[in-house]
Amino acid sequence: MSAGTRETGTGHQTGETGRRDAPLLVATPHDDGVDAAVDAARRVIAGLLAAGDQTGLELGAVTAQLIAVADHLEAHAPDRAARLAVMWQGEGVTRHDPVTGPENAIAPPLTLHGMDDGSIQGTVTLGLPYQGPPGHVHGGVSALLLDHTLGVANHWGGPSGMTAELTLRYRRPTPLFEPLTITARQVSVDGSRIRTVGAISAGGRECVTAEGLFINKHLPRPD
Amino acid sequence: MSAGTRETGTGHQTGETGRRDAPLLVATPHDDGVDAAVDAARRVIAGLLAAGDQTGLELGAVTAQLIAVADHLEAHAPDRAARLAVMWQGEGVTRHDPVTGPENAIAPPLTLHGMDDGSIQGTVTLGLPYQGPPGHVHGGVSALLLDHTLGVANHWGGPSGMTAELTLRYRRPTPLFEPLTITARQVSVDGSRIRTVGAISAGGRECVTAEGLFINKHLPRPD
Repeated sequence: MSAGTRETGTGHQTGETGRRDAPLLVATPHDDGVDAAVDAARRVIAGLLAAGDQTGLELGAVTAQLIAVADHLEAHAPDRAARLAVMWQGEGVTRHDPVTGPENAIAPPLTLHGMDDGSIQGTVTLGLPYQGPPGHVHGGVSALLLDHTLGVANHWGGPSGMTAELTLRYRRPTPLFEPLTITARQVSVDGSRIRTVGAISAGGRECVTAEGLFINKHLPRPD
Repeated sequence: MSAGTRETGTGHQTGETGRRDAPLLVATPHDDGVDAAVDAARRVIAGLLAAGDQTGLELGAVTAQLIAVADHLEAHAPDRAARLAVMWQGEGVTRHDPVTGPENAIAPPLTLHGMDDGSIQGTVTLGLPYQGPPGHVHGGVSALLLDHTLGVANHWGGPSGMTAELTLRYRRPTPLFEPLTITARQVSVDGSRIRTVGAISAGGRECVTAEGLFINKHLPRPD
């Protein structure tokens, strides 16, 4: 989870069905700019896995096109220190992470909303890039999603911090290609020690549960 | 972790410096075909994060190029059931996972070698797509890498299976942009219960440690 610099509660935006008026706790993706390019890049990642080495794919041409795009992006990138400073300014804090970030093509992305009872909730459907066992979500991907979601739940529910300990229990295989519900809530705060729980469910049944211990400290933002 | 279908020990290939003759436990990436396209896609993912909304980037054109590639891949993809069956045949088992897979652009990818003492070891340097706190690896990404590595260690050391429980302890922040060493070894087998440990280190110091309980059962491969 990010170092407590996540800005939650960006306003009472309209959530998904059944969560109307539940505040959105992640960055809203834009329809243009880098978010649109990232959205297309997600389709490329999934498409490469879906197509494989299919005959007629002309993978040499595909590779050349992707290299041209990568060369263009790298030629326009500022130096790393300057980019990190910009990333960690203002609204940028929620835009680049590998779980919810609209600027990160690795992120599914997961959308999370804050509930009135202090918990948070989101839904996501995962495809081939997130596969572990045949047709099912990789256990480590579930861990990634839950670590991040527990961190966001801390921002919504009270003090937040960095993960100190995280325990995942895998109760049944988590399916790909079906809507998953992810929930989390902060359960206690004892000085700097924060305890938070969460779960991933499919079809109303818990697949993976998580318990996290977080410490209320944060790494400095780059200048 | 994959459902025990990983094929380990693809031969005594030459490993990295200091691990000469240590068997490679992951698929060898090819210089052409889908692996080359995936390698370029990784550069696109990182390039989008490195460049952001930089002036002069012509992101509309970038987006159009990526959409064209995605459309082409999707048009050539077989139906999902057929693709899953092919993925889980023969050598394909190690090619698509989100940690080591040369066909998965989400994978850093991590390279792992089997050691004579029954442990396994790998090195990886992570960039912007894997960021959590400023300049550091996302705790959930460390969990993803460790879950997978513990599973591969089971294949190398003895019986293997699916993750039942995984505990991560975050001892110090894990840096981006520096070589990380990932190690794991199976420590006990009691009937179907397998216990495995691992760690991510940077500069000789442990950043994250993991303890896993795995159950020696596997999901069926698709027909």
